[in-house]
Amino acid sequence: MKIKRIGILTGGGDCPGLNAVIRAVVKTALRRFKIEVVGIADGYAGLVEGVMRPLQDSDVSGILHRGGTILGTSNRANPFQYAVIGEDGKMMIQDRSGEALEQMRKFGLDALVAIGGDGTLSIAKKMADLGVPVIGVPKTIDNDLDATDVTFGFDSALAVATEGVDRLHSTAESHHRAMILEVMGRYAGWIALRAGIAGGGDVILIPEIPYEIEKVCNEVKRRIHLGKRFSIVVVAEGAKPKDGEITVQRTVEGSTDPIRLGGVGQVVAGRIEKEVGIESRVVVLGHLQRGGTPTPFDRWLGTRFGVAAVELLAEERFTRMVCLRGQNIESVELEKAVSKLRRVEPQSEEVRTARSVGTCFGDE
Amino acid sequence: MKIKRIGILTGGGDCPGLNAVIRAVVKTALRRFKIEVVGIADGYAGLVEGVMRPLQDSDVSGILHRGGTILGTSNRANPFQYAVIGEDGKMMIQDRSGEALEQMRKFGLDALVAIGGDGTLSIAKKMADLGVPVIGVPKTIDNDLDATDVTFGFDSALAVATEGVDRLHSTAESHHRAMILEVMGRYAGWIALRAGIAGGGDVILIPEIPYEIEKVCNEVKRRIHLGKRFSIVVVAEGAKPKDGEITVQRTVEGSTDPIRLGGVGQVVAGRIEKEVGIESRVVVLGHLQRGGTPTPFDRWLGTRFGVAAVELLAEERFTRMVCLRGQNIESVELEKAVSKLRRVEPQSEEVRTARSVGTCFGDE
Amino acid sequence: MKIKRIGILTGGGDCPGLNAVIRAVVKTALRRFKIEVVGIADGYAGLVEGVMRPLQDSDVSGILHRGGTILGTSNRANPFQYAVIGEDGKMMIQDRSGEALEQMRKFGLDALVAIGGDGTLSIAKKMADLGVPVIGVPKTIDNDLDATDVTFGFDSALAVATEGVDRLHSTAESHHRAMILEVMGRYAGWIALRAGIAGGGDVILIPEIPYEIEKVCNEVKRRIHLGKRFSIVVVAEGAKPKDGEITVQRTVEGSTDPIRLGGVGQVVAGRIEKEVGIESRVVVLGHLQRGGTPTPFDRWLGTRFGVAAVELLAEERFTRMVCLRGQNIESVELEKAVSKLRRVEPQSEEVRTARSVGTCFGDE
Amino acid sequence: MKIKRIGILTGGGDCPGLNAVIRAVVKTALRRFKIEVVGIADGYAGLVEGVMRPLQDSDVSGILHRGGTILGTSNRANPFQYAVIGEDGKMMIQDRSGEALEQMRKFGLDALVAIGGDGTLSIAKKMADLGVPVIGVPKTIDNDLDATDVTFGFDSALAVATEGVDRLHSTAESHHRAMILEVMGRYAGWIALRAGIAGGGDVILIPEIPYEIEKVCNEVKRRIHLGKRFSIVVVAEGAKPKDGEITVQRTVEGSTDPIRLGGVGQVVAGRIEKEVGIESRVVVLGHLQRGGTPTPFDRWLGTRFGVAAVELLAEERFTRMVCLRGQNIESVELEKAVSKLRRVEPQSEEVRTARSVGTCFGDE
Repeated sequence: MKIKRIGILTGGGDCPGLNAVIRAVVKTALRRFKIEVVGIADGYAGLVEGVMRPLQDSDVSGILHRGGTILGTSNRANPFQYAVIGEDGKMMIQDRSGEALEQMRKFGLDALVAIGGDGTLSIAKKMADLGVPVIGVPKTIDNDLDATDVTFGFDSALAVATEGVDRLHSTAESHHRAMILEVMGRYAGWIALRAGIAGGGDVILIPEIPYEIEKVCNEVKRRIHLGKRFSIVVVAEGAKPKDGEITVQRTVEGSTDPIRLGGVGQVVAGRIEKEVGIESRVVVLGHLQRGGTPTPFDRWLGTRFGVAAVELLAEERFTRMVCLRGQNIESVELEKAVSKLRRVEPQSEEVRTARSVGTCFGDE
Repeated sequence: MKIKRIGILTGGGDCPGLNAVIRAVVKTALRRFKIEVVGIADGYAGLVEGVMRPLQDSDVSGILHRGGTILGTSNRANPFQYAVIGEDGKMMIQDRSGEALEQMRKFGLDALVAIGGDGTLSIAKKMADLGVPVIGVPKTIDNDLDATDVTFGFDSALAVATEGVDRLHSTAESHHRAMILEVMGRYAGWIALRAGIAGGGDVILIPEIPYEIEKVCNEVKRRIHLGKRFSIVVVAEGAKPKDGEITVQRTVEGSTDPIRLGGVGQVVAGRIEKEVGIESRVVVLGHLQRGGTPTPFDRWLGTRFGVAAVELLAEERFTRMVCLRGQNIESVELEKAVSKLRRVEPQSEEVRTARSVGTCFGDE
Repeated sequence: MKIKRIGILTGGGDCPGLNAVIRAVVKTALRRFKIEVVGIADGYAGLVEGVMRPLQDSDVSGILHRGGTILGTSNRANPFQYAVIGEDGKMMIQDRSGEALEQMRKFGLDALVAIGGDGTLSIAKKMADLGVPVIGVPKTIDNDLDATDVTFGFDSALAVATEGVDRLHSTAESHHRAMILEVMGRYAGWIALRAGIAGGGDVILIPEIPYEIEKVCNEVKRRIHLGKRFSIVVVAEGAKPKDGEITVQRTVEGSTDPIRLGGVGQVVAGRIEKEVGIESRVVVLGHLQRGGTPTPFDRWLGTRFGVAAVELLAEERFTRMVCLRGQNIESVELEKAVSKLRRVEPQSEEVRTARSVGTCFGDE
Repeated sequence: MKIKRIGILTGGGDCPGLNAVIRAVVKTALRRFKIEVVGIADGYAGLVEGVMRPLQDSDVSGILHRGGTILGTSNRANPFQYAVIGEDGKMMIQDRSGEALEQMRKFGLDALVAIGGDGTLSIAKKMADLGVPVIGVPKTIDNDLDATDVTFGFDSALAVATEGVDRLHSTAESHHRAMILEVMGRYAGWIALRAGIAGGGDVILIPEIPYEIEKVCNEVKRRIHLGKRFSIVVVAEGAKPKDGEITVQRTVEGSTDPIRLGGVGQVVAGRIEKEVGIESRVVVLGHLQRGGTPTPFDRWLGTRFGVAAVELLAEERFTRMVCLRGQNIESVELEKAVSKLRRVEPQSEEVRTARSVGTCFGDE
């Protein structure tokens, strides 16, 4: 089967570098392989609903340095478990994969490039099981996918996080304070670890190394005794104390539905302030880490991924995901791609590096 | 009286540009006027305790582009109401202004340059009443001091806030979301107003214009009807609803002393999510706005202020504060300097400008 | 005459903030005054040739933070002296102002907003003399127009120039070098002066203060004797030695038409290397100063100018230019607007400020 | 032999990330291994002259994010061919390696960490041949050392170069221009290639792929025919035409010793302007690429290299160089480390990626 027209979609949370992938797919398909490209709106939602449009060279001109995704994305749309509002106003979950296939036929799509995290790629695998030629491109800002050494978005998030550490340094120095920066990383602490190393954080707390708050406080005290005026603590949102869970609940008068904001960072700050008796402040970077111009690395990697995805399609090597191994672009079976989480290894060279320059992980 | 040696201190919250002032004072005093400069540690605390050291050219070399203050600062130290821990371990408030004067004599300080906000400058005025030759340099990151058109730090904070709006734009576009950015501004909404104009915020909420949440939600709905995928709301921390107060209380399990983080931004986000039915996310910039490298404007203005302060001292024009009027450096009596707040005028050209390009203030 | 439709054009070199003006004009005209806006391509060229298109809200959405101008610009197109290629292939200069008027009639334009420097605004004045209602918006990245205290673009150029000084500092420190940075400023030295103050330049050379190379070299030598490892020299492209002109001619083998690049910076670097015996390096910032995202200040000022321009049109106060006076937006007669250059005053507070912190201007 | 005290030096051109290495070496040596560290000033010059001082934790505090090297560097000092000024005022070359060894004895240095490029590391190898325990850390901003996949400094230089491309885009779009950006890369085109891919350059010229100027001009013409308003050309300083050399000579009136600035970029710009008849502008980034704050990646890699260097010393695995292989820190024999250049492979996946998205290399 010769591929003549492909659909492309982005799913899950947005991530700097998505537009680089889209641009590379469109340019490579049109120029090198004379394959037409159709952009699908808002992830799988656009596939089910048939919201898509042809992408020309002009559509992807000037988007390389822009954050977000020109296609839009959705966090939850899943053709196999599609949420619809019934006549009675209630939400129902239905299998709409048939409509997705039908839309592909209708728009003449011979194959699909799905850019997303494990959710998006798992659905892509299921589409492949229904006979759709599919290529996956990995997207995870937390960099927690085992099947690729690195993916785009992470370097940009790291840049924002490290800049955050840098900014807090100057204000912390002036005030005898503990400054706590909460960064992304629910299951894997890569952003906290690398921003902590790159920014010279004094304490780094990550999900992979449960911490004891007493040891964190001891480190802050030790620094005070050494005459250091401040401590910087970088906390992954998924960091956990050794002895249990943190649950953050909030009551906000004047509003019934406040939005959740931060968690472990505030708790750590509160404990340090209480136990060490030093002013503590916390900043939760949140969505700032997803936004803005991608770094050169992310644009470059996204471009390589996009080109490689189209090459796989042209070679008819379907149901695969592009990935980076060392310095090389390779590909793996889609099935294997999403099965395993890539986490920080507590005994690794990186953690040892951080400890060597004096970083405390709250465990010893 | 010929001034031969002066002390310099920074008080209140830190602010980008403080080091530019310190550097300019030291260089100008040493070179042009052969006046020695003594750096006082941690605001008035160092004055009372006698913690100070001579500043040479080499001490201020390479600090121009650094955030924070090389002198350190303290938020609360006040010689006239000085907190001390008594023998019984209880905190007492004492008048220690006598010690402050004594330390000035001991270190041979003929005059004082006090860099700070209304708290720091009010104390400086009281020192002047005791006979100390004093010059004030205004510092307020919120830009809410009426006696100067602008002061250093504000432009840098604005840069951080506008970058925040820019970052949220790309992620908001990709997701059909309302993104809320909470910025500094307890009593005056300058940062929210200018970051909102500069970043193209759709809604700007400031203390000077109480908002109605219904009108905010209507604007978000109106945008959705126009086919806009997202709304950006920039909120000053001091923004208030027309009909009352917001009180944010938090209960955090697993910790007894969580740190306060944000407030009105979360409430607004919660209401939009509930009433409009669109995902909402909030980011509280907090201390990021104080940190990092000062902008060229802030370094330039800080340098001008520092030079002008020494010139006033050399001319023996004491008890004055340097200020910017239009494009010119001038000075005002210290007494007048701190008496009046500079707030956004709801009928001003700036607010009209924001409305003209489509910004909603939640009031109409 | 009620204005119903206006044309807008950008002329001269591009400048960060142009898109902010265009966006504000379009949004203000459409929403507040129900005036239609037509975008004219490539400055007066589009006016003569009739290349223009209606601008809607969607055309100016997302352009606020983008450098350049979405309308395009041209450096030389002048309806009164229009260059055309005759049948014999030779270039002729013709008066095409009649066609410009005809195109305005054809497209139904009641008035013109011209954004540009003295060239563009002088032509606007001539159009006004022919009866066209005109409003000018000043654009000069060098900030050398006397009729406005500041204009947009300058702050962004200054940010690039100051970042350049900062970057050279770290490399200069490591190497015992003189680093020379050549910045824009043909007739006025504002960028060199302020980047020099903000970046802590050791020597600043500007057109308004002719320099003696011996005095520059003496300053570099003096610093070496003081044990300083490096000197940073910031040079405006229009800086001149006291005793004459610099002419830079180049012969490039392998090409007959090399492009001019820098000038005075290279000469100064060469002399320092020869006379002081210290390695010297030069960087010419050139077009980097025009490019990239405008600063918050430039977006904010551009927005205010754009709104004010439409307000003037709506009030039928024609043949005027918007301007900034102190902190206020005002307007002046177009005639007066372009007649006088705004230059650095050698005896001003700013130059004195620079000298006070130790800057050498090569004159004493 | 137990290592008790080591010397550390930086040689060659400065590079962002050097301070990260120095900091990591000092902290790791002092804390983990109780090894003292002595900082040697200005590369091998300080070793021969005995200019060095002990480094404590406080000496490396706050330097992680600073460009340059706190030790200073020198481009040419070589103990085996040391330039000295004789009594007759003439420069002589002498072997001063004996003094270098003597100084090591005098200061009690048991081993040496040499951070630098192939020059510095070749000398380190020779010192090893004299019996000095040596560890090398690779530094090459061009990333052209075969023995390591990547080294620090390159990512920071790439960030500056890509920002340069971004800046030129906006100004080029507004003006129908060709913009040429000349970047570093004398023997290898990595910076041009990656900044070109990341910035969306239309033409990329690198030393590894000799170009034909006609083909470059044809690409610019082709783009004009497609209605594209501009072309961006990224040129490595070492790029060469297929048919010969470029020699740039300059005559500058008013000065006898102008400083060399750029080369191939100007020639290419001149030819495009002449042959295509489109305005062309050139920017030479030069030393801007070395300066400023290192990126998070460079600080992180530099820190890992520094820790690994001390670990090798502690394990007494001498005469080796640390390196990055894929994602892992490893080491190679010093001899092999400097023998081979890492160049862009014209048939590689990266070059194919660039071609796939439409980049012209001037060869086809």
